[in-house]
Amino acid sequence: MTQMLGIEHPIIQGGMMWVGRAELASAVSNAGGLGILTALTQPSPEELLREIQRCREMTDKPFGVNLTILPTIKPVPYDEYLDATIEGGVKVVETAGRNPQEFIPRLRENGVRIIHKCTSVRHALKAESIGCDAVSVDGFECAGHPGEDDVTNLVLLPAAAKRLTIPMIASGGIGNGRQLAAALMLGAEAVNMGTRFVATREAPVHDKVKQAMVEADERQTTLIFRSLRNTARVFGNSIAKEVVAIEAKQGETDFADLQPLVAGTRGREQVLEGGDIEGGIWTAGQVIGLIDDIPDCAELLRRMVDEAEQAIRTRARSLGL
Amino acid sequence: MTQMLGIEHPIIQGGMMWVGRAELASAVSNAGGLGILTALTQPSPEELLREIQRCREMTDKPFGVNLTILPTIKPVPYDEYLDATIEGGVKVVETAGRNPQEFIPRLRENGVRIIHKCTSVRHALKAESIGCDAVSVDGFECAGHPGEDDVTNLVLLPAAAKRLTIPMIASGGIGNGRQLAAALMLGAEAVNMGTRFVATREAPVHDKVKQAMVEADERQTTLIFRSLRNTARVFGNSIAKEVVAIEAKQGETDFADLQPLVAGTRGREQVLEGGDIEGGIWTAGQVIGLIDDIPDCAELLRRMVDEAEQAIRTRARSLGL
Repeated sequence: MTQMLGIEHPIIQGGMMWVGRAELASAVSNAGGLGILTALTQPSPEELLREIQRCREMTDKPFGVNLTILPTIKPVPYDEYLDATIEGGVKVVETAGRNPQEFIPRLRENGVRIIHKCTSVRHALKAESIGCDAVSVDGFECAGHPGEDDVTNLVLLPAAAKRLTIPMIASGGIGNGRQLAAALMLGAEAVNMGTRFVATREAPVHDKVKQAMVEADERQTTLIFRSLRNTARVFGNSIAKEVVAIEAKQGETDFADLQPLVAGTRGREQVLEGGDIEGGIWTAGQVIGLIDDIPDCAELLRRMVDEAEQAIRTRARSLGL
Repeated sequence: MTQMLGIEHPIIQGGMMWVGRAELASAVSNAGGLGILTALTQPSPEELLREIQRCREMTDKPFGVNLTILPTIKPVPYDEYLDATIEGGVKVVETAGRNPQEFIPRLRENGVRIIHKCTSVRHALKAESIGCDAVSVDGFECAGHPGEDDVTNLVLLPAAAKRLTIPMIASGGIGNGRQLAAALMLGAEAVNMGTRFVATREAPVHDKVKQAMVEADERQTTLIFRSLRNTARVFGNSIAKEVVAIEAKQGETDFADLQPLVAGTRGREQVLEGGDIEGGIWTAGQVIGLIDDIPDCAELLRRMVDEAEQAIRTRARSLGL
């Protein structure tokens, strides 16, 4: 993966709404990983192109663009976002959500590598069959949408590795070097981190949010919208718990039951930028239990690589390998 | 852990009702791991002592006894089961369920090592504080009772490792050598496997059950009794799905709602021995997605150790360590 992507360390920053801007992406790339700009965080394709140009001024290393394809009320001009990505000279696209098949020919023609993010073995195999260059496999522990299968990365990664021929990136739950080493053992070629990168100095997120992640343990995330079959793992604040309580009590839920509660809160963007932890619903993965500080990206990557090498070296020696 | 337990490979067979008998425990111990007899599978302390003696005739290697302490309608003579264990000369006891504090002094006086199985960091720390020699940490992917926190081993193991001073055994979701290597990277000193050992030649379980595990993928387990806060991961057969459907529909459930359904089925013992996959509820972990054959225990352990060493060696070399 490092050769394919032209990066030094097998650590990729996952696409994240509101957070995946030039400040963070350039910091990750400068640290030797792969930073990712989130296309739809920019209100228009033109603004994405400008963000790409801004990021290029902040790093001379490769970075990528995330394009998440989800059902939306207002149609999204995905093609134009891709035009901007290609025009901006970006050579790696992370797709997520729907099957990216229709976009693959144009990306390949333009020399863009496609990493598709998915939450099951069957979707990973599908991504391989339609021509993706790599897959990012997201386990139950991840922030955001883990799918409805609830298979954890300890099982999902080796199950996918056994059947894939393209390289696999481990995504979800990862934030330290021990876990990087473990992911490599499970058959991944790199790791993708979202939540861990939110708690870095360069993430464009309010300090109170970062501090809440440092203070939280691994039990402080919760799954919402399970009853809608659109499950999301979010930070377990009072609003999220209220949603869970409604879902648990009612059993079968309709979005109409939950919407007043969710609509009455501040959006995730405002929470992240405004720092009101309890003001709305915001995503976080179980890895918050392993986050104890707010380093810069360079320090984080250096530490992870050292820790991973140390773990592998120690075990190799004790086994006399 | 291997030195503490006097075994060759860091692989322990978890306590399992109906399955943890002398046939399986002796096979695991003869293969260089640690076999475990399940105390309460024997109807009386006298029968446990006989089972220990039977196991000793089948292996000259160390093996252990599992004692699971759960609320029951009929009182269980735990002390007498422990007497039998000590009288039988067993030197390792795996406790699970309730806090084993009251049994620890007698076990220690008799030179018995105590491994307590738990599903959270706080319970692991508690086990350490009351004098257990090791903890077996069980993640969300495990068969049987994962607790109510839903933290996966990819996060739970390093979170526990960071705070424990006694050795940790990784439990839940594990069935192959890649995972053994990953568990070691995450800070475990050994792995505990239940489900994977059911699908071995020596397990006293009907071939149809073993075959169902080979055919299943990682999505074919389900959680039942979540609404009772007594969650159990079981094989996703039609009865388990019916229980899940009732719980999902009703939201808040009472055991009285589920009991007629559960009581109307054959018991787990009869399913395992009778081979009627759909005849009742039986436990299975997500690792069923990684089980492709029914080897004997010697072959399974040899293969796992080779695969783990191979994974560590390959990564160590490619990193130039």
